Amino acid sequence: MSKRKCVPCEGGIPPLTEKEILNYLTVVNKGWITKDNKKVVRAFNFVNFKHTMEFANRVAEIADEEGHHPVMHVSYGTVEIEIWTHAIDGLSENDFILAAKIDKLL
Amino acid sequence: MSKRKCVPCEGGIPPLTEKEILNYLTVVNKGWITKDNKKVVRAFNFVNFKHTMEFANRVAEIADEEGHHPVMHVSYGTVEIEIWTHAIDGLSENDFILAAKIDKLL
Repeated sequence: MSKRKCVPCEGGIPPLTEKEILNYLTVVNKGWITKDNKKVVRAFNFVNFKHTMEFANRVAEIADEEGHHPVMHVSYGTVEIEIWTHAIDGLSENDFILAAKIDKLL
Repeated sequence: MSKRKCVPCEGGIPPLTEKEILNYLTVVNKGWITKDNKKVVRAFNFVNFKHTMEFANRVAEIADEEGHHPVMHVSYGTVEIEIWTHAIDGLSENDFILAAKIDKLL
């Protein structure tokens, strides 16, 4: 999964169903959970703000490479990442490709 | 305000009152608003993710210099910053010093 590339999504496809989402969740880290089957979320903890920001910047690089940008909630020792596909107001395969690439950072 | 330094706060002082907060809000950018007089929040918009992350990193540098760390909600074109003083579960002068320094980044 982490070797695939996000493909542009302009909408026009249906969001993943609950069953599909549960399937995709088996191939990413168990830390990822869904919010109402519309987003996937994972929190990453660090010992200090320097490590936290380093991680946020590595996620940002991946996001730019993939052309797919998560929301990051950054505090002193935590980055909480939310991923979804705006164009379809739900989840697409791209979201799990991005999640898998972020998993590989650790 | 932006020339002052945050001083360590271990608690033991009362949080600022509503009246004090309104006073401090007059010396920072009008973009800052309070949440229940417990936090101050301001959103900063950018044309792309590169500029967004550059700003987040400059805020992070200031936070480390001051030893006072905000929460940053980072998306493609926005950084929303929340500042408060954990030790007193409310606002202190430090929060407005940090806000004023962040204002000067733009």
